[in-house]
Amino acid sequence: MAIPNLQVALDHNRIEDALKDALAVGNEVDIIEAGTILLLNEGDKAIKCLRSAFPDKVIIADTKCADAGTTVAKNVALAGADWMTVICCATIPTMEAANKEVKSLQVELYGDWTFEQAQQWRDAGIDQAIFHQSRDALFAGATWTESDLNKIRRLIEMGFKVSATGGLTKDTLKVFEGIPIYTFIAGRGIYATENPAQSAREFKEEIKRIWG
Amino acid sequence: MAIPNLQVALDHNRIEDALKDALAVGNEVDIIEAGTILLLNEGDKAIKCLRSAFPDKVIIADTKCADAGTTVAKNVALAGADWMTVICCATIPTMEAANKEVKSLQVELYGDWTFEQAQQWRDAGIDQAIFHQSRDALFAGATWTESDLNKIRRLIEMGFKVSATGGLTKDTLKVFEGIPIYTFIAGRGIYATENPAQSAREFKEEIKRIWG
Repeated sequence: MAIPNLQVALDHNRIEDALKDALAVGNEVDIIEAGTILLLNEGDKAIKCLRSAFPDKVIIADTKCADAGTTVAKNVALAGADWMTVICCATIPTMEAANKEVKSLQVELYGDWTFEQAQQWRDAGIDQAIFHQSRDALFAGATWTESDLNKIRRLIEMGFKVSATGGLTKDTLKVFEGIPIYTFIAGRGIYATENPAQSAREFKEEIKRIWG
Repeated sequence: MAIPNLQVALDHNRIEDALKDALAVGNEVDIIEAGTILLLNEGDKAIKCLRSAFPDKVIIADTKCADAGTTVAKNVALAGADWMTVICCATIPTMEAANKEVKSLQVELYGDWTFEQAQQWRDAGIDQAIFHQSRDALFAGATWTESDLNKIRRLIEMGFKVSATGGLTKDTLKVFEGIPIYTFIAGRGIYATENPAQSAREFKEEIKRIWG
């Protein structure tokens, strides 16, 4: 089983704060994400700064794009993003349009999506999905369930590379043991700790221990 | 029947271009929208500039928020937005969280939403919905159908103030005759014309002719 990637999601309000944490953990992680909150506040400057700081890392623009796929994808690619996200209720034409402009497109799964829709995304040439415990759902008490894990297994069987995110800490990774997760995404679980670089390393070590 | 509002959606890449068109048509329209493309490229500066230019207009941040409702809504309100949008596949906790931070929240309808979900939004205290012909769907040949109009009628019966958008020109407004639309949203149909202020006035005149 391949060793899952570790992605840090920068959900800061301002680029100066995001950059500080990115510089602390960027070399420990595989993928750096400009989060939606950061993009909505700082615009493409956020992507440009991360690209400047990390010329060789995979950088994701978490646009959660719902429409105007061509323009949004062209803009983030121009700013330096490799991958971007679309929301699962975007139409297939939006996804297809975005998919042409970036190196890889990821469908963010929120709300009541279906496996029938997931097949349409596969048929449209999309091979990445992000299984998301919504931050607000987590605040409302939700947690990872066997039902979540079964959905992830089924998406992987359909050919998706699946990222998992939402309230992850190194201690919750073992919940996913035996499942070939493509990427684990963590934000505050990495950078809102006393020693962010150390936290990122501990995540990586636990991933290697379970999947290595 | 109340006279529908006219909203200009600024879907420019850069604030300087959005501002130019906003200044040309802002006094002719009722509502000014900082579009998603603009927000993702310029960040909250886009909202701040529009608020500076139009201290008394309703300004909407078209974030199409899918998660982190509290933070996204606080940020756009702080920047000067009155209303903001959430995507229809956001969870109810996200919508409820966002709804607490802005004067009004609008659910953007994309993809396969259901009237059962719409009732949940109403139960959560949300009273605005945006019926959207996706820009990418329009590029792919979609158009306004009787089925669309029936969905809009049903949403209005449920208590939603419904905005309609997607490929609108003053000549397509008559399709909605007899339906108490709350707001018509147009972008290029207003500003990508030879005389944007004149185009906005013609929209308003046609709205008054039909609903006045």
